[in-house]
Amino acid sequence: MILCDIGNTTLDWYVNGICSKQRVDDFDPSGHTEQIYYICVNVKLSSLLKSLDNWCDIAQLVDWTKYYSTMGVDRIMACEAISNGVIVDAGSAITVDVMDDGEYDGGFIALGLKSAQEAYAKLSPALSESFNFEVDLTIMAKNTPDAITVGFLAPLVDKINSLGRPLYVTGGDSRVLSHLLCDAVVDDLLVFKGMKKLVEKGHLC
Amino acid sequence: MILCDIGNTTLDWYVNGICSKQRVDDFDPSGHTEQIYYICVNVKLSSLLKSLDNWCDIAQLVDWTKYYSTMGVDRIMACEAISNGVIVDAGSAITVDVMDDGEYDGGFIALGLKSAQEAYAKLSPALSESFNFEVDLTIMAKNTPDAITVGFLAPLVDKINSLGRPLYVTGGDSRVLSHLLCDAVVDDLLVFKGMKKLVEKGHLC
Repeated sequence: MILCDIGNTTLDWYVNGICSKQRVDDFDPSGHTEQIYYICVNVKLSSLLKSLDNWCDIAQLVDWTKYYSTMGVDRIMACEAISNGVIVDAGSAITVDVMDDGEYDGGFIALGLKSAQEAYAKLSPALSESFNFEVDLTIMAKNTPDAITVGFLAPLVDKINSLGRPLYVTGGDSRVLSHLLCDAVVDDLLVFKGMKKLVEKGHLC
Repeated sequence: MILCDIGNTTLDWYVNGICSKQRVDDFDPSGHTEQIYYICVNVKLSSLLKSLDNWCDIAQLVDWTKYYSTMGVDRIMACEAISNGVIVDAGSAITVDVMDDGEYDGGFIALGLKSAQEAYAKLSPALSESFNFEVDLTIMAKNTPDAITVGFLAPLVDKINSLGRPLYVTGGDSRVLSHLLCDAVVDDLLVFKGMKKLVEKGHLC
Protein backbone atom coordinates (compact mmCIF):
# COMPACT_ATOMS: atom_id res chain seq x y z
CA MET A 1 0.00 0.00 0.00
CA ILE A 2 1.27 3.48 -0.86
CA LEU A 3 0.35 6.29 1.54
CA CYS A 4 1.13 9.98 1.20
CA ASP A 5 0.68 12.74 3.82
CA ILE A 6 0.81 16.07 1.96
CA GLY A 7 1.61 19.27 3.81
CA ASN A 8 2.25 22.78 2.59
CA THR A 9 5.98 22.34 2.02
CA THR A 10 6.64 18.59 2.30
CA LEU A 11 5.12 15.23 1.28
CA ASP A 12 5.64 12.27 3.61
CA TRP A 13 5.56 8.95 1.75
CA TYR A 14 5.02 5.49 3.17
CA VAL A 15 5.74 2.92 0.46
CA ASN A 16 5.65 -0.74 1.49
CA GLY A 17 6.85 0.05 4.99
CA ILE A 18 9.51 2.54 4.00
CA CYS A 19 9.19 6.26 4.86
CA SER A 20 10.60 9.08 2.77
CA LYS A 21 10.15 12.80 2.33
CA GLN A 22 9.75 14.94 -0.77
CA ARG A 23 9.55 18.69 -1.23
CA VAL A 24 6.26 19.94 -2.65
CA ASP A 25 8.28 21.87 -5.26
CA ASP A 26 9.77 18.59 -6.54
CA PHE A 27 6.41 16.81 -6.74
CA ASP A 28 4.70 15.85 -10.00
CA PRO A 29 1.54 13.78 -9.29
CA SER A 30 1.14 12.75 -12.94
CA GLY A 31 4.46 10.87 -12.65
CA HIS A 32 2.71 8.30 -10.42
CA THR A 33 0.53 5.62 -11.99
CA GLU A 34 0.06 3.38 -8.91
CA GLN A 35 -2.93 3.58 -6.56
CA ILE A 36 -2.02 6.13 -3.87
CA TYR A 37 -3.99 6.89 -0.71
CA TYR A 38 -3.38 10.39 0.60
CA ILE A 39 -4.34 13.13 2.98
CA CYS A 40 -3.68 16.71 1.97
CA VAL A 41 -3.76 20.11 3.71
CA ASN A 42 -2.19 21.81 0.69
CA VAL A 43 -5.08 23.68 -0.96
CA LYS A 44 -3.32 24.08 -4.31
CA LEU A 45 -2.45 20.39 -4.66
CA SER A 46 -5.79 19.26 -3.29
CA SER A 47 -7.83 20.27 -6.34
CA LEU A 48 -5.21 18.87 -8.73
CA LEU A 49 -5.22 15.47 -7.01
CA LYS A 50 -9.01 15.23 -7.03
CA SER A 51 -8.86 15.13 -10.85
CA LEU A 52 -6.55 12.08 -10.87
CA ASP A 53 -8.23 8.66 -10.66
CA ASN A 54 -5.34 6.82 -8.98
CA TRP A 55 -5.14 9.33 -6.09
CA CYS A 56 -7.65 8.47 -3.33
CA ASP A 57 -8.34 11.09 -0.62
CA ILE A 58 -8.67 9.30 2.72
CA ALA A 59 -10.46 12.34 4.23
CA GLN A 60 -13.61 11.03 2.51
CA LEU A 61 -13.39 7.85 4.62
CA VAL A 62 -13.46 9.77 7.92
CA ASP A 63 -16.64 9.73 9.99
CA TRP A 64 -16.56 13.50 10.52
CA THR A 65 -19.42 13.36 13.07
CA LYS A 66 -16.83 11.95 15.51
CA TYR A 67 -14.56 15.00 15.15
CA TYR A 68 -15.08 18.68 14.29
CA SER A 69 -15.08 20.27 10.88
CA THR A 70 -11.99 22.48 11.29
CA MET A 71 -9.86 19.71 12.82
CA GLY A 72 -6.69 18.96 10.82
CA VAL A 73 -6.97 15.72 8.85
CA ASP A 74 -3.44 14.63 9.91
CA ARG A 75 -4.51 15.01 13.53
CA ILE A 76 -7.59 12.87 12.83
CA MET A 77 -5.43 10.15 11.23
CA ALA A 78 -3.23 9.94 14.34
CA CYS A 79 -6.41 9.63 16.45
CA GLU A 80 -7.76 6.87 14.17
CA ALA A 81 -4.62 4.85 14.91
CA ILE A 82 -5.40 4.63 18.65
CA SER A 83 -8.59 3.26 20.25
CA ASN A 84 -7.78 4.21 23.83
CA GLY A 85 -5.22 6.79 24.84
CA VAL A 86 -3.84 10.27 24.50
CA ILE A 87 -2.25 11.20 21.18
CA VAL A 88 0.39 13.95 21.36
CA ASP A 89 1.56 15.29 18.00
CA ALA A 90 4.56 17.50 18.73
CA GLY A 91 5.11 19.49 15.57
CA SER A 92 4.83 23.20 14.77
CA ALA A 93 1.90 23.07 17.20
CA ILE A 94 1.52 20.41 19.91
CA THR A 95 -1.90 18.81 19.55
CA VAL A 96 -3.21 16.63 22.37
CA ASP A 97 -6.23 14.42 21.70
CA VAL A 98 -8.09 11.87 23.78
CA MET A 99 -9.55 8.68 22.30
CA ASP A 100 -11.89 6.57 24.40
CA ASP A 101 -12.97 3.21 23.00
CA GLY A 102 -12.68 4.49 19.43
CA GLU A 103 -14.60 7.68 20.21
CA TYR A 104 -13.02 11.15 20.09
CA ASP A 105 -13.22 12.80 23.53
CA GLY A 106 -11.79 16.17 22.43
CA GLY A 107 -8.39 17.70 22.79
CA PHE A 108 -6.39 20.89 22.83
CA ILE A 109 -3.68 22.71 20.90
CA ALA A 110 -0.54 24.07 22.57
CA LEU A 111 2.20 25.99 20.81
CA GLY A 112 5.09 23.95 19.43
CA LEU A 113 8.52 24.15 21.07
CA LYS A 114 10.00 26.33 18.31
CA SER A 115 6.95 28.57 18.15
CA ALA A 116 6.96 29.11 21.94
CA GLN A 117 10.68 29.94 22.02
CA GLU A 118 10.18 32.43 19.17
CA ALA A 119 7.29 34.05 21.05
CA TYR A 120 9.46 34.47 24.19
CA ALA A 121 12.28 35.95 22.09
CA LYS A 122 9.83 38.42 20.53
CA LEU A 123 8.74 39.62 23.99
CA SER A 124 12.22 40.65 25.07
CA PRO A 125 15.87 40.04 24.18
CA ALA A 126 16.25 38.90 27.81
CA LEU A 127 13.88 35.98 27.07
CA SER A 128 15.63 35.02 23.85
CA GLU A 129 16.99 31.81 25.36
CA SER A 130 16.76 28.17 24.35
CA PHE A 131 14.75 25.82 26.54
CA ASN A 132 16.82 23.82 29.01
CA PHE A 133 15.56 20.25 28.61
CA GLU A 134 17.73 19.12 31.54
CA VAL A 135 15.82 21.26 34.04
CA ASP A 136 13.73 19.68 36.80
CA LEU A 137 10.20 20.72 35.82
CA THR A 138 8.86 19.99 39.31
CA ILE A 139 10.69 22.87 40.96
CA MET A 140 10.44 26.62 40.51
CA ALA A 141 13.21 28.25 38.47
CA LYS A 142 15.87 30.72 39.54
CA ASN A 143 17.38 31.74 36.22
CA THR A 144 15.93 32.91 32.90
CA PRO A 145 16.41 29.81 30.67
CA ASP A 146 14.90 27.59 33.38
CA ALA A 147 12.10 30.10 34.05
CA ILE A 148 10.87 30.03 30.43
CA THR A 149 11.37 26.25 30.18
CA VAL A 150 9.40 25.59 33.36
CA GLY A 151 6.87 28.26 32.33
CA PHE A 152 6.11 26.61 29.03
CA LEU A 153 6.77 22.91 29.62
CA ALA A 154 5.85 22.19 33.25
CA PRO A 155 2.17 23.19 32.91
CA LEU A 156 1.84 21.34 29.58
CA VAL A 157 3.61 18.17 30.75
CA ASP A 158 1.61 18.12 34.01
CA LYS A 159 -1.62 18.53 32.04
CA ILE A 160 -0.84 15.70 29.61
CA ASN A 161 0.31 13.37 32.40
CA SER A 162 -2.86 14.17 34.39
CA LEU A 163 -5.07 12.80 31.61
CA GLY A 164 -4.41 9.35 33.07
CA ARG A 165 -4.34 7.33 29.85
CA PRO A 166 -1.64 5.63 27.78
CA LEU A 167 0.37 8.30 25.93
CA TYR A 168 1.38 8.03 22.27
CA VAL A 169 3.72 10.70 20.96
CA THR A 170 4.44 11.49 17.32
CA GLY A 171 5.78 14.45 15.30
CA GLY A 172 9.16 16.12 14.88
CA ASP A 173 9.65 16.85 18.60
CA SER A 174 8.27 13.49 19.77
CA ARG A 175 11.53 12.30 21.33
CA VAL A 176 12.30 15.51 23.23
CA LEU A 177 8.79 15.69 24.62
CA SER A 178 8.37 11.99 25.38
CA HIS A 179 11.32 12.10 27.81
CA LEU A 180 9.29 14.49 29.96
CA LEU A 181 6.09 12.42 29.89
CA CYS A 182 5.17 9.36 31.96
CA ASP A 183 5.59 6.06 30.06
CA ALA A 184 4.98 7.64 26.68
CA VAL A 185 5.29 5.52 23.56
CA VAL A 186 6.97 7.29 20.63
CA ASP A 187 5.42 6.23 17.33
CA ASP A 188 6.47 8.22 14.27
CA LEU A 189 4.11 6.14 12.10
CA LEU A 190 0.92 7.09 13.92
CA VAL A 191 -0.52 9.16 11.04
CA PHE A 192 0.27 6.41 8.49
CA LYS A 193 -1.18 3.75 10.81
CA GLY A 194 -4.44 5.71 11.02
CA MET A 195 -4.50 6.15 7.25
CA LYS A 196 -3.89 2.43 6.67
CA LYS A 197 -6.60 1.51 9.18
CA LEU A 198 -9.15 3.75 7.45
CA VAL A 199 -8.28 2.42 3.98
CA GLU A 200 -8.64 -1.17 5.22
CA LYS A 201 -11.88 -0.38 7.06
CA GLY A 202 -13.23 1.40 3.99
CA HIS A 203 -12.47 -1.68 1.84
CA LEU A 204 -10.49 0.47 -0.55
CA CYS A 205 -7.38 -1.66 -0.53
CA MET B 1 5.75 59.48 48.78
CA ILE B 2 6.20 59.65 45.03
CA LEU B 3 6.91 56.36 43.24
CA CYS B 4 7.64 55.81 39.55
CA ASP B 5 7.82 52.50 37.64
CA ILE B 6 9.61 53.22 34.35
CA GLY B 7 9.21 50.88 31.41
CA ASN B 8 10.36 51.13 27.83
CA THR B 9 7.31 53.00 26.56
CA THR B 10 5.38 54.10 29.68
CA LEU B 11 5.96 55.48 33.17
CA ASP B 12 3.56 54.45 35.93
CA TRP B 13 3.31 57.08 38.66
CA TYR B 14 2.01 56.66 42.21
CA VAL B 15 1.68 60.08 43.83
CA ASN B 16 0.11 60.22 47.29
CA GLY B 17 -2.10 57.23 46.57
CA ILE B 18 -3.10 58.25 43.05
CA CYS B 19 -1.96 56.29 40.00
CA SER B 20 -1.32 57.79 36.57
CA LYS B 21 0.47 56.92 33.36
CA GLN B 22 2.83 58.94 31.19
CA ARG B 23 4.44 58.15 27.85
CA VAL B 24 8.22 57.99 27.92
CA ASP B 25 8.25 60.42 24.98
CA ASP B 26 6.45 63.04 27.10
CA PHE B 27 8.77 62.63 30.10
CA ASP B 28 11.26 65.28 31.21
CA PRO B 29 12.95 64.22 34.50
CA SER B 30 14.48 67.64 35.08
CA GLY B 31 10.92 69.05 35.38
CA HIS B 32 10.59 67.25 38.74
CA THR B 33 12.20 68.74 41.85
CA GLU B 34 10.56 66.48 44.49
CA GLN B 35 12.17 63.34 45.91
CA ILE B 36 11.13 60.47 43.61
CA TYR B 37 11.71 56.75 44.22
CA TYR B 38 11.82 54.77 41.03
CA ILE B 39 12.55 51.49 39.31
CA CYS B 40 13.60 51.54 35.68
CA VAL B 41 14.07 48.95 32.92
CA ASN B 42 14.59 51.66 30.31
CA VAL B 43 18.34 51.64 29.62
CA LYS B 44 18.40 55.11 28.05
CA LEU B 45 16.57 56.82 30.94
CA SER B 46 18.45 54.82 33.54
CA SER B 47 21.80 56.57 33.07
CA LEU B 48 20.11 59.99 32.88
CA LEU B 49 18.26 59.46 36.18
CA LYS B 50 21.39 58.32 38.00
CA SER B 51 22.82 61.81 37.47
CA LEU B 52 19.87 63.50 39.20
CA ASP B 53 20.06 63.76 43.03
CA ASN B 54 16.30 63.74 43.68
CA TRP B 55 15.75 60.48 41.75
CA CYS B 56 16.44 57.45 43.99
CA ASP B 57 16.75 54.01 42.31
CA ILE B 58 15.02 51.44 44.54
CA ALA B 59 16.92 48.60 42.80
CA GLN B 60 19.86 49.50 45.04
CA LEU B 61 17.74 48.61 48.09
CA VAL B 62 17.06 45.06 46.87
CA ASP B 63 18.85 42.17 48.56
CA TRP B 64 19.81 40.59 45.22
CA THR B 65 21.11 37.42 46.91
CA LYS B 66 17.42 36.50 47.44
CA TYR B 67 16.69 36.67 43.69
CA TYR B 68 18.70 36.16 40.49
CA SER B 69 20.67 38.75 38.59
CA THR B 70 18.60 38.76 35.36
CA MET B 71 15.24 38.91 37.15
CA GLY B 72 13.18 41.96 36.20
CA VAL B 73 13.16 44.61 38.93
CA ASP B 74 9.37 45.14 38.57
CA ARG B 75 8.89 41.42 39.20
CA ILE B 76 11.07 41.68 42.33
CA MET B 77 9.01 44.63 43.60
CA ALA B 78 5.78 42.62 43.31
CA CYS B 79 7.48 39.77 45.22
CA GLU B 80 8.65 42.19 47.94
CA ALA B 81 5.02 43.17 48.53
CA ILE B 82 4.04 39.63 49.60
CA SER B 83 5.62 37.54 52.38
CA ASN B 84 3.73 34.31 51.69
CA GLY B 85 2.01 33.49 48.47
CA VAL B 86 2.15 33.22 44.71
CA ILE B 87 2.50 36.45 42.74
CA VAL B 88 1.11 36.34 39.20
CA ASP B 89 1.98 39.33 37.02
CA ALA B 90 -0.14 39.01 33.88
CA GLY B 91 1.37 41.44 31.42
CA SER B 92 3.19 40.96 28.10
CA ALA B 93 4.59 37.85 29.80
CA ILE B 94 2.90 36.09 32.72
CA THR B 95 5.41 35.76 35.54
CA VAL B 96 4.60 33.45 38.44
CA ASP B 97 6.71 33.70 41.61
CA VAL B 98 6.55 31.98 44.97
CA MET B 99 7.36 33.77 48.24
CA ASP B 100 7.74 31.75 51.43
CA ASP B 101 8.12 33.64 54.69
CA GLY B 102 9.81 36.55 52.90
CA GLU B 103 12.17 34.28 50.97
CA TYR B 104 12.02 33.88 47.18
CA ASP B 105 11.30 30.25 46.28
CA GLY B 106 11.67 30.69 42.49
CA GLY B 107 9.15 31.04 39.73
CA PHE B 108 8.50 30.73 36.04
CA ILE B 109 7.62 32.81 33.00
CA ALA B 110 4.73 31.93 30.68
CA LEU B 111 3.79 33.85 27.55
CA GLY B 112 1.26 36.64 27.99
CA LEU B 113 -2.27 36.25 26.58
CA LYS B 114 -1.64 38.57 23.62
CA SER B 115 1.75 37.04 22.87
CA ALA B 116 0.32 33.49 22.93
CA GLN B 117 -2.58 34.40 20.63
CA GLU B 118 -0.14 36.06 18.21
CA ALA B 119 2.04 32.93 18.23
CA TYR B 120 -0.97 30.71 17.40
CA ALA B 121 -1.98 33.07 14.58
CA LYS B 122 1.56 32.93 13.18
CA LEU B 123 1.42 29.12 13.05
CA SER B 124 -1.63 28.98 10.82
CA PRO B 125 -4.54 31.18 9.70
CA ALA B 126 -6.76 28.39 11.08
CA LEU B 127 -5.42 29.14 14.58
CA SER B 128 -5.87 32.89 14.25
CA GLU B 129 -8.70 32.94 16.76
CA SER B 130 -9.29 34.84 19.99
CA PHE B 131 -9.27 32.92 23.25
CA ASN B 132 -12.73 31.99 24.53
CA PHE B 133 -12.66 32.98 28.19
CA GLU B 134 -16.11 31.42 28.72
CA VAL B 135 -14.85 27.90 27.95
CA ASP B 136 -14.76 25.21 30.64
CA LEU B 137 -11.02 24.61 31.06
CA THR B 138 -11.60 21.26 32.77
CA ILE B 139 -12.89 19.53 29.63
CA MET B 140 -11.24 18.75 26.33
CA ALA B 141 -12.20 21.00 23.41
CA LYS B 142 -14.09 20.19 20.22
CA ASN B 143 -13.62 23.37 18.21
CA THR B 144 -10.62 25.51 17.30
CA PRO B 145 -11.09 28.58 19.56
CA ASP B 146 -11.71 26.32 22.57
CA ALA B 147 -8.78 24.04 21.59
CA ILE B 148 -6.25 26.89 21.67
CA THR B 149 -7.82 28.41 24.80
CA VAL B 150 -7.70 25.10 26.68
CA GLY B 151 -4.25 24.39 25.21
CA PHE B 152 -2.77 27.59 26.53
CA LEU B 153 -4.80 28.39 29.64
CA ALA B 154 -5.78 25.04 31.20
CA PRO B 155 -2.19 23.83 31.81
CA LEU B 156 -1.13 27.25 33.13
CA VAL B 157 -4.16 27.73 35.38
CA ASP B 158 -3.86 24.16 36.74
CA LYS B 159 -0.16 24.73 37.46
CA ILE B 160 -0.75 28.02 39.30
CA ASN B 161 -3.66 26.58 41.31
CA SER B 162 -1.56 23.52 42.21
CA LEU B 163 1.03 25.68 43.98
CA GLY B 164 -1.29 25.62 46.99
CA ARG B 165 -0.67 29.12 48.29
CA PRO B 166 -2.63 32.37 48.40
CA LEU B 167 -2.66 33.90 44.91
CA TYR B 168 -2.08 37.59 44.20
CA VAL B 169 -2.62 38.76 40.63
CA THR B 170 -1.44 42.02 39.11
CA GLY B 171 -0.73 43.40 35.61
CA GLY B 172 -2.87 44.39 32.63
CA ASP B 173 -4.60 41.00 32.29
CA SER B 174 -5.03 40.49 36.05
CA ARG B 175 -8.84 40.52 35.97
CA VAL B 176 -9.23 38.14 33.04
CA LEU B 177 -6.79 35.66 34.54
CA SER B 178 -7.98 35.94 38.15
CA HIS B 179 -11.45 34.71 37.15
CA LEU B 180 -9.85 31.40 36.18
CA LEU B 181 -7.80 31.01 39.36
CA CYS B 182 -8.89 29.77 42.80
CA ASP B 183 -9.54 32.58 45.30
CA ALA B 184 -7.09 34.95 43.65
CA VAL B 185 -6.75 38.49 45.00
CA VAL B 186 -6.36 41.13 42.27
CA ASP B 187 -4.01 43.88 43.40
CA ASP B 188 -2.96 46.39 40.75
CA LEU B 189 -0.74 48.18 43.28
CA LEU B 190 1.52 45.20 44.06
CA VAL B 191 4.61 46.71 42.39
CA PHE B 192 4.11 50.06 44.14
CA LYS B 193 3.48 48.29 47.48
CA GLY B 194 6.79 46.45 47.15
CA MET B 195 8.56 49.69 46.21
CA LYS B 196 7.06 51.51 49.21
CA LYS B 197 7.99 48.65 51.55
CA LEU B 198 11.61 48.69 50.37
CA VAL B 199 11.88 52.48 50.70
CA GLU B 200 10.48 52.33 54.25
CA LYS B 201 12.73 49.38 55.17
CA GLY B 202 15.74 51.18 53.69
CA HIS B 203 14.95 54.26 55.82
CA LEU B 204 15.03 56.41 52.72
CA CYS B 205 11.68 58.07 53.33
